[in-house]
Amino acid sequence: MCPANVVSAEKQQPLETINLNQGDPTMFVEYWKKAGEKSSVVIPGWQNLSYYPNDNVDNICWFLEKEFSDEVKKLHEVVGNAITKDRYIVIGTGSTQLYQASLFALASNDDNNHDSSSKPMDVVSAVPYYSSYPAVTDFLKSGLYKWSGDAYKFDDKNEPYIEVVCSPNNPDGHTMKQVVNGFRGKLIHDLAYYWPQYTPITKPADHDIMLFTVSKSTGHAGTRLGWAIVKDEKLARKMTKFIELSTIGVSKDSQYRAATIMRAVTESAQSISLHLAGNFFEFGKKTMVGRWDRLRKVASENGAFSLPEYQKQYCNYFGEIREAHPGFAWLKCNLENVGDCDSLLEGKLKILVRGGKNFGMDYRKFVRVSLIDQEDKFQMLIDRLSTVSSSTKIKA
Amino acid sequence: MCPANVVSAEKQQPLETINLNQGDPTMFVEYWKKAGEKSSVVIPGWQNLSYYPNDNVDNICWFLEKEFSDEVKKLHEVVGNAITKDRYIVIGTGSTQLYQASLFALASNDDNNHDSSSKPMDVVSAVPYYSSYPAVTDFLKSGLYKWSGDAYKFDDKNEPYIEVVCSPNNPDGHTMKQVVNGFRGKLIHDLAYYWPQYTPITKPADHDIMLFTVSKSTGHAGTRLGWAIVKDEKLARKMTKFIELSTIGVSKDSQYRAATIMRAVTESAQSISLHLAGNFFEFGKKTMVGRWDRLRKVASENGAFSLPEYQKQYCNYFGEIREAHPGFAWLKCNLENVGDCDSLLEGKLKILVRGGKNFGMDYRKFVRVSLIDQEDKFQMLIDRLSTVSSSTKIKA
Repeated sequence: MCPANVVSAEKQQPLETINLNQGDPTMFVEYWKKAGEKSSVVIPGWQNLSYYPNDNVDNICWFLEKEFSDEVKKLHEVVGNAITKDRYIVIGTGSTQLYQASLFALASNDDNNHDSSSKPMDVVSAVPYYSSYPAVTDFLKSGLYKWSGDAYKFDDKNEPYIEVVCSPNNPDGHTMKQVVNGFRGKLIHDLAYYWPQYTPITKPADHDIMLFTVSKSTGHAGTRLGWAIVKDEKLARKMTKFIELSTIGVSKDSQYRAATIMRAVTESAQSISLHLAGNFFEFGKKTMVGRWDRLRKVASENGAFSLPEYQKQYCNYFGEIREAHPGFAWLKCNLENVGDCDSLLEGKLKILVRGGKNFGMDYRKFVRVSLIDQEDKFQMLIDRLSTVSSSTKIKA
Repeated sequence: MCPANVVSAEKQQPLETINLNQGDPTMFVEYWKKAGEKSSVVIPGWQNLSYYPNDNVDNICWFLEKEFSDEVKKLHEVVGNAITKDRYIVIGTGSTQLYQASLFALASNDDNNHDSSSKPMDVVSAVPYYSSYPAVTDFLKSGLYKWSGDAYKFDDKNEPYIEVVCSPNNPDGHTMKQVVNGFRGKLIHDLAYYWPQYTPITKPADHDIMLFTVSKSTGHAGTRLGWAIVKDEKLARKMTKFIELSTIGVSKDSQYRAATIMRAVTESAQSISLHLAGNFFEFGKKTMVGRWDRLRKVASENGAFSLPEYQKQYCNYFGEIREAHPGFAWLKCNLENVGDCDSLLEGKLKILVRGGKNFGMDYRKFVRVSLIDQEDKFQMLIDRLSTVSSSTKIKA
C-alpha cells in the first residue's frame, strides 16, 4: 500500500502521530492568550438558570440572547461579509445543528408542495463537498430529506431539492456558487470560512439561509455555537422549532461567552481600543499567509504534492488585492506509486488527515489537511512533508 | 368553554399572564445567590478553543471533560441515587439530546436483529408520559424508530421495542417501573427528577441507560447539559456517535461551569465546608415541602382541585421517612362544568400550564403546573387557585 521509495521518514525515530484530520482551530490560542481580560468572562452560580434569555425580548428564536445577536450583527457590519439588516438570527449548537435545522425547515415547509407522505427531499452539494454532509443528513434515516451526493450529477430538477453551497469550500477553499439551478431548488449557504483571515471579502453575502460558526470565525470550537442568518420568517420559525426539539435551545453560558469574544474581535477589528493582541483578523491573515508560504515552498521543492491556486481578488475588509489562504490544504499527491494519498500521510508520515473519498472524490490522490492547528503541529507537518523524496516525483 | 361560576378572578384588575407551562427551575436562584464564589467560574478567552477535552483522557465519549465526569460520579456517590462504577458516562446538550441518542443507539444496535430495511422500532411510555417524547421521537420521521404511544396499550411484543420509564414520572411524580415486560424490550430510564429535593432516594438506580440533567438536579437549565450512565460499551459508543453527528460534541464552557456547580452541590451535601447557603438538597426539599403544603391547603379548602397522593418511603439520603414533593403538580380539576382544565387555568386564571392531552390523556380534567419557578410566580398561582369558588365544587 505504501511506497518503498518514501525513504527519509523511515530512518528516523518512530514518529508521534499528529492529528490534522479535524479543523481544530487551536491556532488562535496564541492570539487569545495575549487578548487579556476583555475576552474573559465571569459567570456566577445564580446566572443562566432559566431556559429563557436574560433579556426578555420577544424573539422568533425564543432561546436567543439579545446580547449575542447584537454582537453577531456588529461583527458582520464591521467585517462586511454578510447582510443582517431585516434578517432573522437563529442560534444553534454549532453550525452542524443549524445545517440540520435548515434541512428540517426547508423539507417540511408548506410552500414547497412536498407533503409528508411523499419521498424524502434530495440534498446535494458540489464535489468535493464537506465530508460531514452525507452522514449528518442520513444518520437518522429521515423521511423528510436524504443525501443525494454530487450536485454536478443531480438531474431530478422537477422535484424540490436542497443544494448546499459551501463557500469558501471545505475542503478546497474555492469560492462557490449553486450549480444545479433548478427552479424548485432551495439553497443553504454554509459560510463558515467566509472571514478575512481565510479569503478576500468581496461583498456582503445575501442568501436565504447563511450559516456561520464561532469555531472558524473566532476559533472557539469548544464553545459549540453557530448562527444562521435567515430571510424568511417562516423558515426561521421552523429552524427554531428544530433546535427546540433537538436540544431545547442552546447553552446560555456559551452564548454569553461568545458575545464577549465577538465583542473583543469587533473592537480589535475597528481598532476602537488598544489591544495588546492587535487586530484579530490581521493576526489570522498573517498566520495563514505565513503557513501557506511555507507549505507552498515544501510542495514546490519536492514536487511530490501540489496545492490549489486561488484567484487574486480585492478584499473590502483589508482594502487590498489578495488571494485566499484557506484553513485546509487540499493536497494532491503526485507520486505515481501511491495507492491513496491518505495511506501515505497516515501510514508513513503519521499525520492523520481526511482522505478525498470522504469528500465524494473517486480519485484517491487528494487529502484534506488542517492548517489551523497549533504551530508545533504545523511545523511537524512541514518537516514530514519535506522528507518525502523528490526523486520519486511522477505527475499523476 | 370557561364556566360562568368562576367568579372571583373576574372582579379584579386584568391579570398578568404567568407561565408555569415549562419546568423552568428558577426557584434555585435563591440558593445560588447565597452560594458565593465557590459556584462562580472565570473563563479566559484562550480556554476551550479545541473540540477535544482539556484533559487528554482516552474516553469513549471523546468530547467529555474528565472534570465533569468526575463530578458526576462524586455527586451520585454522595446522593446515592445511581450506580456509576464500571459504567460509561455520555454527555449531551441536555437530556433531550441524550434521549434521542439512546433511541438511535438502541434502534441501530446490531444485536437486536433489527436491520435497517425493516420498519422503525416502536417507542412507548406509560400514560401519562412526558409530553415531549412524541414530538422529539417523530419530528424527523426517522426510519429507525417511531412513537407508538401508551406502554399500557402496547401489545406487539414479538418485535424489538423501546420503553421509556420516567421515574419519578413527569408529569405526575409517581415512581415508575417498566410495564410492557416483553422479552425483546429495550429500556431507557429518564431519571431527571430522581433527586432528594423531589422524592425519597430509596436505592441507587442501576439500569442499562439512565438519563440525568443539570436542569433539574442543580437548577441550571440554561447550561443545557445532561448525562447518561450506560452499562454497555457498544451503546455508549453509538450514543457518542449520535452526539458527534448531531452537534459535534457538547459545549465545553457548559461542562466546565457544570463541573464547578456540581462540586459546590456535592460539598454542600457532605457539609465539607461551611456554606453560606447550606445544604443544597435541604434547601430544595424545604422549598418543595413548603410549596406542596400551601398547594394542598388551597386544594383542600376550595375543593375545586385535587392532587396525587404519594406513598411515604424511607429516604437513604435524608435518613427519614418522607413522601415525594414533585417539581410539578398534576392537578385534577373537580368542577363539573369545566370542559378542560387548561382552559380554566389559562383562560380565566391566566396561568399557562400544560394540558393533560399533551401527556397522552384523553380525559381533560388534568393539567401539569410547574412548582419550581420563582416564589412570586408560585404565590400568584396559590392566590389565583384560591379565587376559584368552592361553592361550585362537584366531583367529576
